Amino acid sequence: MNSPMIRTLLGHVLKIEGALMLLPCLVAIIYQEKVGFIYLAVAGATALIGTALSFFKPANTALYLKEGCITTALSWIALSFFGCLPFCISGEIPSFTNALFETISGFTTTGASILNDVESLSHTALFWRSFTHWVGGMGVLVFLLAVVPLSGGSTINLLKAESPGPSVGKLVPKMKATARNLYSIYALLTLLQILFMLAGGCPAFDSITLSLGTAGTGGFGVRNDSLASYSPYIQWVVTFFMICFGVNFNFYYFLIMKRFKEAFHIEEVKYYLCIIIAAVIIIFLNIYRIFGSAGEALRHSAFQVASIITTSGFCTTDFDTWNTTCRMIIVLLMFIGACAGSTGGGIKVSRFVVMLKNFKREVNSYIHPKSVKSIMFEHKSADETMVASISVYLITFIMIFIPSLLLITLDNMDLTSSFTAVATTINNIGPGLNLIGPTRNFYELSTLSKYVLMFDMLAGRLELFPLLILFHPGSIKALITSRKKKKI
Amino acid sequence: MNSPMIRTLLGHVLKIEGALMLLPCLVAIIYQEKVGFIYLAVAGATALIGTALSFFKPANTALYLKEGCITTALSWIALSFFGCLPFCISGEIPSFTNALFETISGFTTTGASILNDVESLSHTALFWRSFTHWVGGMGVLVFLLAVVPLSGGSTINLLKAESPGPSVGKLVPKMKATARNLYSIYALLTLLQILFMLAGGCPAFDSITLSLGTAGTGGFGVRNDSLASYSPYIQWVVTFFMICFGVNFNFYYFLIMKRFKEAFHIEEVKYYLCIIIAAVIIIFLNIYRIFGSAGEALRHSAFQVASIITTSGFCTTDFDTWNTTCRMIIVLLMFIGACAGSTGGGIKVSRFVVMLKNFKREVNSYIHPKSVKSIMFEHKSADETMVASISVYLITFIMIFIPSLLLITLDNMDLTSSFTAVATTINNIGPGLNLIGPTRNFYELSTLSKYVLMFDMLAGRLELFPLLILFHPGSIKALITSRKKKKI
Repeated sequence: MNSPMIRTLLGHVLKIEGALMLLPCLVAIIYQEKVGFIYLAVAGATALIGTALSFFKPANTALYLKEGCITTALSWIALSFFGCLPFCISGEIPSFTNALFETISGFTTTGASILNDVESLSHTALFWRSFTHWVGGMGVLVFLLAVVPLSGGSTINLLKAESPGPSVGKLVPKMKATARNLYSIYALLTLLQILFMLAGGCPAFDSITLSLGTAGTGGFGVRNDSLASYSPYIQWVVTFFMICFGVNFNFYYFLIMKRFKEAFHIEEVKYYLCIIIAAVIIIFLNIYRIFGSAGEALRHSAFQVASIITTSGFCTTDFDTWNTTCRMIIVLLMFIGACAGSTGGGIKVSRFVVMLKNFKREVNSYIHPKSVKSIMFEHKSADETMVASISVYLITFIMIFIPSLLLITLDNMDLTSSFTAVATTINNIGPGLNLIGPTRNFYELSTLSKYVLMFDMLAGRLELFPLLILFHPGSIKALITSRKKKKI
Repeated sequence: MNSPMIRTLLGHVLKIEGALMLLPCLVAIIYQEKVGFIYLAVAGATALIGTALSFFKPANTALYLKEGCITTALSWIALSFFGCLPFCISGEIPSFTNALFETISGFTTTGASILNDVESLSHTALFWRSFTHWVGGMGVLVFLLAVVPLSGGSTINLLKAESPGPSVGKLVPKMKATARNLYSIYALLTLLQILFMLAGGCPAFDSITLSLGTAGTGGFGVRNDSLASYSPYIQWVVTFFMICFGVNFNFYYFLIMKRFKEAFHIEEVKYYLCIIIAAVIIIFLNIYRIFGSAGEALRHSAFQVASIITTSGFCTTDFDTWNTTCRMIIVLLMFIGACAGSTGGGIKVSRFVVMLKNFKREVNSYIHPKSVKSIMFEHKSADETMVASISVYLITFIMIFIPSLLLITLDNMDLTSSFTAVATTINNIGPGLNLIGPTRNFYELSTLSKYVLMFDMLAGRLELFPLLILFHPGSIKALITSRKKKKI
């Protein structure tokens, strides 16, 4: 185990977090909030610890997949730990568990909250909350790769462990350039959304925080009713950008490179849009009687579908009051999730498409046993390894889901609440149904349940494996052994 | 498509059904119920149609896997159609949809009922209802193989399509001998249970019908409260035999052959028993305060766990009133199901064990990348083909489950009722939760929902594929074409 390298990377991550925390300090200056000093102090402390950890350069910079996973998992835990300190120290979220829950929910772009009254928070805290979404959306290690020079071969193992989706799309041969490209597109789209929202008369603070939340497919709002009280124009803008941030970022890269044919041939994006359209239509048909006009029904239907499939979790209306068909579609969309290579969570459209194709092939193999073809996905043959790795992903998903579910049931909420609590956190969405529906939150849950859901949020954001690898007895043993060796 | 052979086999199946229907006639004689004449008439008509269909021997008796699937699916549909006629004609279940639902529920050993008052049925009808469980438990085509001489190679394709579990355990090289062995063990165990029940003072009629239902892991009772009003002794006997019928029948075969070492080395059976013990303990700890004594709590816990994991569906108490942890465990057990090669339904323990081992291997491959071992199951190496076929099974399961669920939601029951309605039928259990809980039934559902659930029951019993193959456009086309060719 290359502990020195893991320690160094962890140090880099904390230095970055310290730097990022200066932004809420800026917000504190603008709104003249004293709480800014706390952010400044925590930023300083975090950067200091980060500098100390990364002070000695490791002799060996090679990082195997296992170490990549462990680094990623540890980074995200450290990020959340230091990120929650300002909430605790300022007393805006007095309980450490709640503050950690809120911060993990932020970084993992879940948006599940324990706050009953977000409007009582300072602007600084609200900004930091939304900003964690933005940082977590693209990933802090991707950011690290974009700014810190690291040795070549190892970086892919970091990117693999942090990026959403079954395979990391190498946009360009060099990882550093890929990371920079991704962050540039990300920042550009976010800026675009801010401008569109400002143009609609949305207050600057709301425009910025909501855009950060949309970009990361997070879901933390700055009003207690999420997005219900904003104008229809703002709601449509957010709908549009939620869908945009759920698209595979390769699409934008191809667009910028003027490789239009490739851009419009991404199969996953087509399926993603088809699912959205189908879900919007079905829900629209089920709810149009509830609302005053067809336009309003369409807006709420489109907003909620986009919010759930992209795993954002904003709401404009309480979809928990809709009929069973609508609510079932919402639950299904929770699992499908967005495109791979986007900032969205969930199981990802591409995995479902490959599974669907595999299913069709299997049934056809009974009908025409002699003409068994291999599956085509993204205009390439999807080999058995890909199918097998998706199966393993699904099995792992179930293996995390079921124990979580059983632990959550100890709270004795009803089955739907328990089920959707796990579904909405492991898929990084935010609201669930019933007791954790859009008008409720996670405050009432037991401490045990909160920690289980924190684990699920991190597991979901990091595509399951990094966290399992970190908590595997073998890894813990290796980490301890390498520490002991050093001491000797 | 070898239509003549499919037709002939279908004829044989109907002849057998005609013969089997003479048993309820015997019951009618004993209880002097006039309804017996209806059973006699339907038996005669069924046998006559069967004879007509199988009159001309097909020139070619070869049966490929596709044709095996289609034969099986058609047989079960024909079986259910003719089997429901006595209920309709006698007026005991006036609606055809309801009668068909009840009969499919019987043959598929589900035990989901549309009857509000089973005690008002004639003895003849009650017997026929329970007897369908017994016939469906082991399978009518297995029975066919045991009694009708068929050409060798093709028979495995029939057995494959009908037998529960991922792989047909060929007990002995000859299929006919395997089928006979299976039915002998089955009959013997059923007889044993009848004797045990009689010894406990259970009325003869109840002993016989309940034993038939237990053997098939069905779940139709003869009292409105299922098994709640029987003595603790009877409830324990049924618990014991439910667990027995959920065991892989290879176990009994090895026992009879005095191959004890092999018998006690079946891995699946060990896991099956471990799951039962774990579930009983957890539920016991959650419910012991509700009941008067620990013994009573243990009895209800053991009974319900055995009933659900073996997919029987009898109840001694309304488990829908238990807390969320217990109900969640019940739902999980619904999916796990019994052992492969038993009469139980569900996804089967062996599939879960292989998946679990695959998951463990995958996580270990991150920790020790150089020492990736193949999975061992039942003391043999489980190759990638086995893992892949289980993945395909699971994907197919999901592909049937989700559309069923969406169609069921049109009834606008709550989410838990909708979910468990599909879960309990596709896994061939019987009761679900909430609106279709142990004290309720499926009567109130819409006709569409009932047909969807009938499809699910058949799909679940026949391990998903035969029904999909039958309704595949390619098969329907082939069936029509081969018919047209004949006419020309």
